[in-house]
Amino acid sequence: MPDDFQLDERLRADTVEVEDWDLSRVLLMNDANYPWLILVPRRAGLRDFHDLVGPDLLCLTAEIVRASNKLIALFPEGQKPHKMNVAALGNQVPQLHVHVIARFTDDPAWPKPVWGAAPARPYDTAALAERLKRLRGR
Amino acid sequence: MPDDFQLDERLRADTVEVEDWDLSRVLLMNDANYPWLILVPRRAGLRDFHDLVGPDLLCLTAEIVRASNKLIALFPEGQKPHKMNVAALGNQVPQLHVHVIARFTDDPAWPKPVWGAAPARPYDTAALAERLKRLRGR
Repeated sequence: MPDDFQLDERLRADTVEVEDWDLSRVLLMNDANYPWLILVPRRAGLRDFHDLVGPDLLCLTAEIVRASNKLIALFPEGQKPHKMNVAALGNQVPQLHVHVIARFTDDPAWPKPVWGAAPARPYDTAALAERLKRLRGR
Repeated sequence: MPDDFQLDERLRADTVEVEDWDLSRVLLMNDANYPWLILVPRRAGLRDFHDLVGPDLLCLTAEIVRASNKLIALFPEGQKPHKMNVAALGNQVPQLHVHVIARFTDDPAWPKPVWGAAPARPYDTAALAERLKRLRGR
């Protein structure tokens, strides 16, 4: 591992790389509207959640939980996200990827799903650097 | 198990019960626009995917795969779904539930997510009975 994994070009264009975990490449969606990670298992040819088998399936599941906890940890007590959204859709980008999104009741899409709700608002340089620093590592 | 699990009223109103698996109550969304199952872990007080721990987390993951395969098996070779959507959102209904949806490139929402895309089209009696029969059991 990785075999001949290559990150989809559209995912690459919309995100900033955080780091690689055991299975997944961890990406931060470059949209300051929502704290939003994307996990991409580094295996060639995966399309759907059920394409994963055995240890990889368990690993992705654990990494979804880890990503959720990473996003929740960005916020102090009393300002935690209201809900976490977890989704593997892939209608536009067929490469298997899992969205993990922290939702707040005052975010631009609430209570709807985030996709298509508001134009992406890229992070400024300082905010991006700060967020990446806090998302990296254990 | 179950402890004092109670199915959310809105989920009950929008769906038809298929059966109970080891962890989840399996519901069929009463919307013939999309082959669409909802898994609701039968534990009281769950909100988010990461609220599940240990064996329950593994069990739900396995049940997501099982639900995907059940939906795919409804269709003959050459007419299989184009993509499976898997999502735990819960912005409108906070009780943890996982959508497993078979998507086709000619469905009413494609390529967008299904939520809010088209009014639900309830199954007629015969189609519902046939679908439930094929979804139940191993």
